[in-house]
Amino acid sequence: MSDNSFGRLLRVTTFGESHGPAIGCVVDGCPPGIALAADDFRRDLDRRATGKTRHTSARREADEIEILSGVYEGLTTGTPIGLLIRNTDARSRDYGSIAEQFRPGHADYAYWQKYGIRDPRGGGRSSARETTMRVAAGVIARKWLAERHGIEIQGFLSQLGEIHPTGIDLSVVEGNPFFWPDAGQVAELEAYMDALRKSGDSVGARVDVVARGVPPGWGEPVYGKLDGELAAALMSINAVKGVEVGDGFESVAQKGSEHRDRMTPGGFLSNHAGGVLGGISTGQDLRCSVAFKPTSSLRLPVDGLDVHGEVVEVVTTGRHDPCVGIRAIPICEAMVALVLMDQALRHRAQCGDVGAVAPRIPGHAGEADDKR
Amino acid sequence: MSDNSFGRLLRVTTFGESHGPAIGCVVDGCPPGIALAADDFRRDLDRRATGKTRHTSARREADEIEILSGVYEGLTTGTPIGLLIRNTDARSRDYGSIAEQFRPGHADYAYWQKYGIRDPRGGGRSSARETTMRVAAGVIARKWLAERHGIEIQGFLSQLGEIHPTGIDLSVVEGNPFFWPDAGQVAELEAYMDALRKSGDSVGARVDVVARGVPPGWGEPVYGKLDGELAAALMSINAVKGVEVGDGFESVAQKGSEHRDRMTPGGFLSNHAGGVLGGISTGQDLRCSVAFKPTSSLRLPVDGLDVHGEVVEVVTTGRHDPCVGIRAIPICEAMVALVLMDQALRHRAQCGDVGAVAPRIPGHAGEADDKR
Amino acid sequence: MSDNSFGRLLRVTTFGESHGPAIGCVVDGCPPGIALAADDFRRDLDRRATGKTRHTSARREADEIEILSGVYEGLTTGTPIGLLIRNTDARSRDYGSIAEQFRPGHADYAYWQKYGIRDPRGGGRSSARETTMRVAAGVIARKWLAERHGIEIQGFLSQLGEIHPTGIDLSVVEGNPFFWPDAGQVAELEAYMDALRKSGDSVGARVDVVARGVPPGWGEPVYGKLDGELAAALMSINAVKGVEVGDGFESVAQKGSEHRDRMTPGGFLSNHAGGVLGGISTGQDLRCSVAFKPTSSLRLPVDGLDVHGEVVEVVTTGRHDPCVGIRAIPICEAMVALVLMDQALRHRAQCGDVGAVAPRIPGHAGEADDKR
Amino acid sequence: MSDNSFGRLLRVTTFGESHGPAIGCVVDGCPPGIALAADDFRRDLDRRATGKTRHTSARREADEIEILSGVYEGLTTGTPIGLLIRNTDARSRDYGSIAEQFRPGHADYAYWQKYGIRDPRGGGRSSARETTMRVAAGVIARKWLAERHGIEIQGFLSQLGEIHPTGIDLSVVEGNPFFWPDAGQVAELEAYMDALRKSGDSVGARVDVVARGVPPGWGEPVYGKLDGELAAALMSINAVKGVEVGDGFESVAQKGSEHRDRMTPGGFLSNHAGGVLGGISTGQDLRCSVAFKPTSSLRLPVDGLDVHGEVVEVVTTGRHDPCVGIRAIPICEAMVALVLMDQALRHRAQCGDVGAVAPRIPGHAGEADDKR
Repeated sequence: MSDNSFGRLLRVTTFGESHGPAIGCVVDGCPPGIALAADDFRRDLDRRATGKTRHTSARREADEIEILSGVYEGLTTGTPIGLLIRNTDARSRDYGSIAEQFRPGHADYAYWQKYGIRDPRGGGRSSARETTMRVAAGVIARKWLAERHGIEIQGFLSQLGEIHPTGIDLSVVEGNPFFWPDAGQVAELEAYMDALRKSGDSVGARVDVVARGVPPGWGEPVYGKLDGELAAALMSINAVKGVEVGDGFESVAQKGSEHRDRMTPGGFLSNHAGGVLGGISTGQDLRCSVAFKPTSSLRLPVDGLDVHGEVVEVVTTGRHDPCVGIRAIPICEAMVALVLMDQALRHRAQCGDVGAVAPRIPGHAGEADDKR
Repeated sequence: MSDNSFGRLLRVTTFGESHGPAIGCVVDGCPPGIALAADDFRRDLDRRATGKTRHTSARREADEIEILSGVYEGLTTGTPIGLLIRNTDARSRDYGSIAEQFRPGHADYAYWQKYGIRDPRGGGRSSARETTMRVAAGVIARKWLAERHGIEIQGFLSQLGEIHPTGIDLSVVEGNPFFWPDAGQVAELEAYMDALRKSGDSVGARVDVVARGVPPGWGEPVYGKLDGELAAALMSINAVKGVEVGDGFESVAQKGSEHRDRMTPGGFLSNHAGGVLGGISTGQDLRCSVAFKPTSSLRLPVDGLDVHGEVVEVVTTGRHDPCVGIRAIPICEAMVALVLMDQALRHRAQCGDVGAVAPRIPGHAGEADDKR
Repeated sequence: MSDNSFGRLLRVTTFGESHGPAIGCVVDGCPPGIALAADDFRRDLDRRATGKTRHTSARREADEIEILSGVYEGLTTGTPIGLLIRNTDARSRDYGSIAEQFRPGHADYAYWQKYGIRDPRGGGRSSARETTMRVAAGVIARKWLAERHGIEIQGFLSQLGEIHPTGIDLSVVEGNPFFWPDAGQVAELEAYMDALRKSGDSVGARVDVVARGVPPGWGEPVYGKLDGELAAALMSINAVKGVEVGDGFESVAQKGSEHRDRMTPGGFLSNHAGGVLGGISTGQDLRCSVAFKPTSSLRLPVDGLDVHGEVVEVVTTGRHDPCVGIRAIPICEAMVALVLMDQALRHRAQCGDVGAVAPRIPGHAGEADDKR
Repeated sequence: MSDNSFGRLLRVTTFGESHGPAIGCVVDGCPPGIALAADDFRRDLDRRATGKTRHTSARREADEIEILSGVYEGLTTGTPIGLLIRNTDARSRDYGSIAEQFRPGHADYAYWQKYGIRDPRGGGRSSARETTMRVAAGVIARKWLAERHGIEIQGFLSQLGEIHPTGIDLSVVEGNPFFWPDAGQVAELEAYMDALRKSGDSVGARVDVVARGVPPGWGEPVYGKLDGELAAALMSINAVKGVEVGDGFESVAQKGSEHRDRMTPGGFLSNHAGGVLGGISTGQDLRCSVAFKPTSSLRLPVDGLDVHGEVVEVVTTGRHDPCVGIRAIPICEAMVALVLMDQALRHRAQCGDVGAVAPRIPGHAGEADDKR
């Protein structure tokens, strides 16, 4: 694996920077024969785009995908799929003032210590723009998982600052700008975000992703664990500080007699495991949760340091999200999709002729098993 | 990467099973010239061993390490280091009754669905014994990190079931059987664990690992993020359900103005980041936290299923930990060490001649910055 | 490693097809601080370009490189370097007639059997155009090797069909269109190629690459052997059927007393080894030789099969090289450079602080040691 | 990939040294359900063993394989397969005199320059003993390829010094100690080798490997080329200086009209390609050829240097092969098997549901197509 590549068989390599001419990615190892066209990317890129509501940055990005290779007559050929998006809206002057500064909470200082060079433009590789290509790559994986395995992947905001949903109804998630699972709280969130934006501050978020229909048997038992790879994938998203699978940190206080999911011929009776045991999928819903820290790019001034070690006041102007977690839902979904497809191909490689092992325990036995 | 291999430059490959003749590992890519002998492994293997107190399994393991290769006249040669431990204490009969059963909370069913074969002996690869070799490999990394970079890695139990430390004093951790950072609570924990063992149940645990002295600049900004790789490494340990870096899930409710760590010429004023920003180390203390679920191997009977889909009562006899988290501290430390050393070598590869970039911001400015 | 990626630390990922909108590559792991600009690619892309003489295809390619990322103020930043070349001259109609045919000597049938899909455009991934990006990536490696280690890499044509050089003078290689090391034979080669082109046939070629100034110690002793990786890299070029290091297949008939290179304090007395022993560089000149088969795209008709298994006459019109080996010299040099730089970084990673080990044996003791 | 690991899905990691307590390997990614027992290794280990005839070293190796993991009730479980062979016959004193010497033709000097440490025992990792584990790993691959795909892999000696077979009859290869394909020359070879042994010198060898029954479609078109990976695998064997596929270097002097293999509904009419086109198998016999240099460990004295740069006379006593190529046949076969199985699994991963694409062109049309 290299730094800009991800996955073992379905391999995604991203390139490009916010302030360069283009960003792109290459997806290698995709099976042939999958229908794919530029239109397929539209929905998820729009969900990712800024400018949809006043609660995200006003930075407009006309994300038009160009398929450079790997598709012929509308079907993947099996050869690497190249995707490119030209950058049209940069406004580099927003960043010019910070060329020599180390902003608290940013990677500026760490980059400088590592490379001995400071590239101040838009945060270079640490910018959220890079993740747009992950969403694009994820479209391919989601398509294949859905068409070949009937797998659905859905993300939603499960905590905004200190606000928790009073109820969970996943059917309303796509209908509000927060991907929030409780329609009754939308107005409250709007007000909260307005106040936050006015204050110039930011807040963190928790994102949950559920994948339904994952067959049992995907994952490898030691270092190629499905949950281990999900953790790495999700933690590789900007601003992530924690990842949980299933009950996560709530498992700490649980007893074993309570945590273990009972199995009946009708299905599992609960899902504390989150769909993974011993690193391998069980057929239960796959449940992950991701912690996003609050953005450090604030209009609130703070003292930073410059390259000479001198104190300097840092204030960020321009266009920023007061809560990056909201727009991260499509990225989280994409990473889950990419890991699942990679694992599916690896499972097919090693165990392809094992075939369906019967009997198979249904993921749900009818009882509600979602904790959040 | 393959399933039984870990790391990109410092590569660890483990092999063997609890009930096989031996377990072992190969550590490849280790720099030459490091002093290494069988005795170096003794301390951490003892910390890992069972049988030290009545709160862990009574399964005695005489872990004598044999160095098969990679060391000459007491120094590493640069060629792969082979380590072997013969298994002497198996008592396979403890597992014989579960050959055809799927035990709730175990990976039995998932394995069977994946491989079409069920190997009931000691959980095969899912057994905790495999991680002994990780501890052994970690010894090499800890030695190199300490000798070459002055890095210290310390783990401790930060939550046992619902019990939290009333204070944090890392100097007392090695002096009690729980790796607990609060001497005043040891008696309470002893009583708690006695009751738990009698009840036949188990409980989860939270383990924190701190690494001091990590220089800034280790890590790669996109998919090779230091925190991403730590997450994958820690999540690959048996029974882990969540990983956090820095403030982790507490970041969700924080404001950006509060979360970002301010920098002064005298050092960082806080450490919400946990020592990593943008995937790269900052020079602050590296802080991770790991959630261990409660073991599902209980003396409390529960219904499981057999390979024909029939209900069957499952009860586990034999020797089990009521809290696997306690003994996992050396494993967590080892994984952190292995990731850090791998990243150090990668940094040296790419940026070896960048040299020390001045000025460097001290990790601490004197104020307490440990949240837990 | 994935199919479109190459290298372990200095990782090159290529993408794009001849008949797509663009071809490109990403070079990841490059050290920061290297001066790099679009002009740096000009020389080697010109050496690679078609249309320079009538002995190569008339297909004009205006190869303008665009640097998408990884360079700031003229220096590499350490982040991935994205390179893009827009395709301007495709003339797809030259290929339209072969959509359903399997041409003898081409990969058509093999691709169809693998992917179940046949993409007839320009041979898709099997086209020589993909290797243009390798040349581009190689420019970066050659620059770093030259600037940091004083290494020079030179390729030349060492056999054209049945014609061998009567003498070897590497100083004349860049002065004739064949990269031929014997100025006195150029007219003969011109006549030979004219006759070949008229006949509609093609011929094979042997390319030698020499790298001078490679320090001893690069390479890994088992599977990461320097010569093993050179072999893989060179064999991955289109039309290659054999690779040798040092005396190669001539070693078969040699005695050990003759083959082993003697060492004196003044240096090695010969170079049968070709600069590699036990997989590690010795400080002698690195010498490789590559066999290119004759192109199968001929104006001479031949029977092929179509997708229904029926016999069909195949004749290729359009623009083709009667000898692909000539233009392959820059590609061979590029692959050697990429492998050397990757190995150099890996050596720095593992052994970075070993330092210079004295005494060092000069690569040459003054006597001529070039066999060819 | 790391230095002691090989393969992408079927991953082989070897460890151990000739003069260590044991050598071993781990084979990861093997499909479950394959019958495997210690006896399965006997035949190929015997073919590899020394001491069979007076033409190889008298060093006796009692190679008893121990299966440490990955097999349950005689079937592979899908988890990593650990293999171990205890070293019983070392006689280290044969090497003691060369601790400070650099022997011409050996990797001593290169190792010392790389690691700064010199481990004189048996050549450490460069010893031929390490390849014994490759043969063992290859047994698993050969079994799977034969049982699942009907693939046969056969190696033979195709040149010994300057001696070529007068005819090729593969059926006699296993019946003489040279794996020679011409029964009428065995006496000549015996005499030749006796004289060589008496002289204290050594000679090189050429080894051919043929794999029959390889289906079309295995291999990846760019960097994962089947022939590229075969080249890397074969070049990674000790003493190899060249690798060819199909007509190899003979292709250089061929015309395209002659080299391209014609296809008829009855099959291919020739096999200049050697079974690979565009990096993908065609269904023709896979043909490789490997050049082994003559061993540099001779009883003939020669001047070498010591670690201080002083001239010193080097003479090797003890047990050595005058022709390492002979015993290398099983290693070459094993490497071919490992590459083929790895590629088969990767093909199954990416294209598993493409299914058999019809019509399929038979590998042979009845006419003789073996060049050698």
